[in-house]
Amino acid sequence: MSARRLVVTGVHGLPEIRPGDDLATLIANAVRAEGEQLRDGDVLAVAQKIVSKSEGRIVPLADVVPGPRALEMARDSGKDARQLEVVLSESAKVVRWSHGVLISQTRHGFVCANAGVDRSNAGAPDTVILLPVDPDASATRLREAIRAKTGATVSVIVTDTFGRAWREGHMNVAIGIAGLPALKRYVGQFDPEGYELRVTEIAVADEVAAAAELVMGKLDRCPVAIVRGLALTETAETARDYVRPAEKDLFR
Amino acid sequence: MSARRLVVTGVHGLPEIRPGDDLATLIANAVRAEGEQLRDGDVLAVAQKIVSKSEGRIVPLADVVPGPRALEMARDSGKDARQLEVVLSESAKVVRWSHGVLISQTRHGFVCANAGVDRSNAGAPDTVILLPVDPDASATRLREAIRAKTGATVSVIVTDTFGRAWREGHMNVAIGIAGLPALKRYVGQFDPEGYELRVTEIAVADEVAAAAELVMGKLDRCPVAIVRGLALTETAETARDYVRPAEKDLFR
Repeated sequence: MSARRLVVTGVHGLPEIRPGDDLATLIANAVRAEGEQLRDGDVLAVAQKIVSKSEGRIVPLADVVPGPRALEMARDSGKDARQLEVVLSESAKVVRWSHGVLISQTRHGFVCANAGVDRSNAGAPDTVILLPVDPDASATRLREAIRAKTGATVSVIVTDTFGRAWREGHMNVAIGIAGLPALKRYVGQFDPEGYELRVTEIAVADEVAAAAELVMGKLDRCPVAIVRGLALTETAETARDYVRPAEKDLFR
Repeated sequence: MSARRLVVTGVHGLPEIRPGDDLATLIANAVRAEGEQLRDGDVLAVAQKIVSKSEGRIVPLADVVPGPRALEMARDSGKDARQLEVVLSESAKVVRWSHGVLISQTRHGFVCANAGVDRSNAGAPDTVILLPVDPDASATRLREAIRAKTGATVSVIVTDTFGRAWREGHMNVAIGIAGLPALKRYVGQFDPEGYELRVTEIAVADEVAAAAELVMGKLDRCPVAIVRGLALTETAETARDYVRPAEKDLFR
């Protein structure tokens, strides 16, 4: 049974996050300031950028010395060689470099533009933010800290906006998961005519991330959303469950 | 400004849809039976399958004579040659045929498995359902019929679950749109440090479709959801705005 009603609430009012900040306390305070209270079963969607900042995943470009490959790519594209150097150092593999667009596979296994390295909303000029080293671990730590702080057993997803291969527009997805499934599985389930369902795995945490983005936005200083009403079973799945094994991937 | 709070409500209790059924009346009745009322600004997410059924986009496989290509693909894969014939006839282009997976571009321009042709939940054995001929037009007709029936000016999206190039799991997306934007554009908008935002287009109707799926599910006979609380400007965009021009596509 799916949820009958879902409520997605944006959490505003967080300060600019600095390395070492106690994100759980800041989020719990912001939730309270919204007149809300976290409950067991809520999913807390948290934008990657504030998680990365709290973990110090910040690189001032002045500290970066670009290597020969980054310099060559910068010459070909007009892009910043230092930023390209950071992207390359965060990439396990460059999937495409074309039209000035760099699609790479991160060390986590995610395929996305610029290995998730981003200069916007960095909180300081000439600075880039990297993805967390282990976003699933970040989600788990945040979940436990929220439980210690508030008593509520929530699930946590760390979200980022990724492009898609064939569709225009970016979409929010889950890059770290704690407490909820990555995939809702219908394998071996049958429709009323006895035919096995075609779509057998729904990317449920990605859909929660997408729902959360609708209240988060990009310029509203609303990097957290509460998603309430999902009836999801607790699992030990992680966002790595989204990584398609190379041998099954037709488009890499 | 994004929505501060979003409420997503599943609409249950629709009957099995037959060709020629008046979907607007059936949906309006089901909404009322849920104790709900449609309001101006609501987004109604409607599963492609019931739209297709109401439009008679149903093919009994007994009526299909497979051609040589479908027969060859059936030999190679063990799949049903008649169903492959229908998929090929719905495909403008086969993008990949490998591991028994057929990814094609539909005549609408969407890239998805099996050109959206589906045998599950077809309502009859040995029958496949095709995508609507023009899902944007379907959405527009439904929107106008809902307005005539209820007085409420809602937006409508027709949804289907598509796979993704590099991530496991399917996700609900918008294949037809009426009254809400496909893309939320941040082009030329700047963060507090004056840096132009990296992610400049968010696939907002796809995110609404994803949020809707969380209450719709696959086996719950809940093919409709109401998404309330979005502050989206009315546009004339269609789901064709998601189709990436071939010259910009790095993965086709």
